Amino acid sequence: MSDHIYKIIELTGSSPESTDQAIRSAVRKAGETVKHMDWFEVVETRGSIQGGEVEFWQVTIKVGFRIES
Amino acid sequence: MSDHIYKIIELTGSSPESTDQAIRSAVRKAGETVKHMDWFEVVETRGSIQGGEVEFWQVTIKVGFRIES
Amino acid sequence: MSDHIYKIIELTGSSPESTDQAIRSAVRKAGETVKHMDWFEVVETRGSIQGGEVEFWQVTIKVGFRIES
Amino acid sequence: MSDHIYKIIELTGSSPESTDQAIRSAVRKAGETVKHMDWFEVVETRGSIQGGEVEFWQVTIKVGFRIES
Amino acid sequence: MSDHIYKIIELTGSSPESTDQAIRSAVRKAGETVKHMDWFEVVETRGSIQGGEVEFWQVTIKVGFRIES
Amino acid sequence: MSDHIYKIIELTGSSPESTDQAIRSAVRKAGETVKHMDWFEVVETRGSIQGGEVEFWQVTIKVGFRIES
Amino acid sequence: MSDHIYKIIELTGSSPESTDQAIRSAVRKAGETVKHMDWFEVVETRGSIQGGEVEFWQVTIKVGFRIES
Amino acid sequence: MSDHIYKIIELTGSSPESTDQAIRSAVRKAGETVKHMDWFEVVETRGSIQGGEVEFWQVTIKVGFRIES
Amino acid sequence: MSDHIYKIIELTGSSPESTDQAIRSAVRKAGETVKHMDWFEVVETRGSIQGGEVEFWQVTIKVGFRIES
Amino acid sequence: MSDHIYKIIELTGSSPESTDQAIRSAVRKAGETVKHMDWFEVVETRGSIQGGEVEFWQVTIKVGFRIES
Amino acid sequence: MSDHIYKIIELTGSSPESTDQAIRSAVRKAGETVKHMDWFEVVETRGSIQGGEVEFWQVTIKVGFRIES
Amino acid sequence: MSDHIYKIIELTGSSPESTDQAIRSAVRKAGETVKHMDWFEVVETRGSIQGGEVEFWQVTIKVGFRIES
Repeated sequence: MSDHIYKIIELTGSSPESTDQAIRSAVRKAGETVKHMDWFEVVETRGSIQGGEVEFWQVTIKVGFRIES
Repeated sequence: MSDHIYKIIELTGSSPESTDQAIRSAVRKAGETVKHMDWFEVVETRGSIQGGEVEFWQVTIKVGFRIES
Repeated sequence: MSDHIYKIIELTGSSPESTDQAIRSAVRKAGETVKHMDWFEVVETRGSIQGGEVEFWQVTIKVGFRIES
Repeated sequence: MSDHIYKIIELTGSSPESTDQAIRSAVRKAGETVKHMDWFEVVETRGSIQGGEVEFWQVTIKVGFRIES
Repeated sequence: MSDHIYKIIELTGSSPESTDQAIRSAVRKAGETVKHMDWFEVVETRGSIQGGEVEFWQVTIKVGFRIES
Repeated sequence: MSDHIYKIIELTGSSPESTDQAIRSAVRKAGETVKHMDWFEVVETRGSIQGGEVEFWQVTIKVGFRIES
Repeated sequence: MSDHIYKIIELTGSSPESTDQAIRSAVRKAGETVKHMDWFEVVETRGSIQGGEVEFWQVTIKVGFRIES
Repeated sequence: MSDHIYKIIELTGSSPESTDQAIRSAVRKAGETVKHMDWFEVVETRGSIQGGEVEFWQVTIKVGFRIES
Repeated sequence: MSDHIYKIIELTGSSPESTDQAIRSAVRKAGETVKHMDWFEVVETRGSIQGGEVEFWQVTIKVGFRIES
Repeated sequence: MSDHIYKIIELTGSSPESTDQAIRSAVRKAGETVKHMDWFEVVETRGSIQGGEVEFWQVTIKVGFRIES
Repeated sequence: MSDHIYKIIELTGSSPESTDQAIRSAVRKAGETVKHMDWFEVVETRGSIQGGEVEFWQVTIKVGFRIES
Repeated sequence: MSDHIYKIIELTGSSPESTDQAIRSAVRKAGETVKHMDWFEVVETRGSIQGGEVEFWQVTIKVGFRIES
């Protein structure tokens, strides 16, 4: 990391498969409008339950991306 | 909640009336520029004091809204 | 408080009116099955948003009640 | 806020009416002995339960006041 | 979420396979005695180590379920 | 710990003697209705004061117990 | 607890004997200048080490006392 | 502070000089796209190390700015 | 540290120069009314922004001082 | 667990595959120099992003191991 | 404390007797390999339960010791 | 960051000059025995007070360094 400034946004991704997949889906969605994404960190891991089984894994992450000069 | 991605923004609403009203004012303001708001959660409750009485109730909330595909 | 033992349970109450009313509804519901309730403390304050307005206030509380000897 | 120094004290207010009223009562009581109160922040929201109903709302706040030079 | 009351219980699930599987096993076990489970959230992720390898993944979750009126 | 599921309950024990004794009293009380208790962890240590001296030590603990298959 | 206001102060007690004794010494010292003390809660437990042994147990507590009307 | 609504954004500033300079650089960068900035608070202080010396001070801050009516 | 009792007070110092200077100003102000100050710890670092630049650095600290026997 | 003493070390493992694999790699690496590892707990889950996709999963864990007498 | 550098290690001590004794045992064990220990602070207090009674008190502490120049 | 494993150690640096200098002194000291240091993060900022003035700035940091394969 050099002398840059980063902005951090918060997103909740969801997936019927796994916690990791919920994170990947949030990162990809963010990438549609934001460039220069550099890192993420997990803020909270939750999920919805339907019929006694995990229905959706929901992971809230912070994503840091470099602001262009 | 289905297989959607949500973005979370942080706002501080204020009101001379009550904490609940401070939250409502923040949610309404956010609704002027953001669609598909789904939930909020309280981050911090503060207030300003003037002449020995509560002047403004200030509540910081996170608001989650669905990103359109 | 004397030499008693207390059990603590966690509940989420909701109300279309206010945060305080959400707490009251959770306390009343708990009182249907639990006796000797002594105190509550707020764990989290959230809410659902519908049409750009707060729909339900949702407050998660811990309720402490004395276990009978 | 200018170049001042502030002292912060912690108080628990209580009210049979509401959480907001418990905060107001703590702020007013503090005002009897302290001048130049500037802000408060909520530390903890609790309450006592009597006969299955909320009896007293108890809110612990920090109050910041300017120290006179 | 409508005008319901939810109870929240805390469980630790374990699995020799993965963190997600530990969560699934806790949710399924809870479903044997509790109906109307609605969501979970992860409180803590731990594990036991045997012979220098992860033996059991142990995830503590909170599970919220609707109390029937 | 093997492939079991554990439930976690929260209790406040009190004792006029010591913090350790408050924990022991909570564990014993829990043992009257719960089997297979495995561990506890301290959540909060408080106490009541009467006449300028500690009257009751009050320790809130979480107790984990194995759910029988 | 009735409709009173409480002030909360923070103290660190120390003792060469035990953590409980460090708390007792802080409560007694507070009682020399403050009346109507009602409860304490432990904020932090530390200690100094001398010659490889615990020298002083140092416990920081908050003490709540009722403000006279 | 009057009856306004504030939005809060999160930024990481970096500087080879000092923590304070990292904060100043983040505030200035935010000011290129955001008006009416009112306050900041420090969320995290980190840094990169190169050749056994601090290379960049990296401070994550939240910045609050008033939303124009 | 010997067998003494310490009281802890909370202060917010501010400075147009730096975070360290905001701490020094709070410590000096406290010293005008309190003797035997022993240590401080930083609770929160904030600041006001004016015209897109940091105006005042505001650091909240706890100060511990020995109570004379 | 019997009457033993445990030391706790902190490690960050990384993996291009998954969060669980990042934990496994950290545990294995620790096992090269440390014996009698008993448990781990997750402290933080982060990751690096490259080209809009998760590049490395980075999980920081604490590992507890028994000190031989 | 003068111009020294301290290293901090984390240990879990256990004792069948008391929490204080668990801390003492961890400090003594650390003293077998580390010199110039200066302070400890409690991170977590847990215990194992056997036959409905506390079996071992387990206290995790951080121990700070001066690094020799 | 590639597919490496990192170890994290905790240190308290002190300086009579500034918080930043306390961090630098801790990083340099760590560099005498540890190679491949990569980052630090601030855990706690404290200080000693002597004669009503800050005597030593004491900053506790975590330092991450790559473990060689």
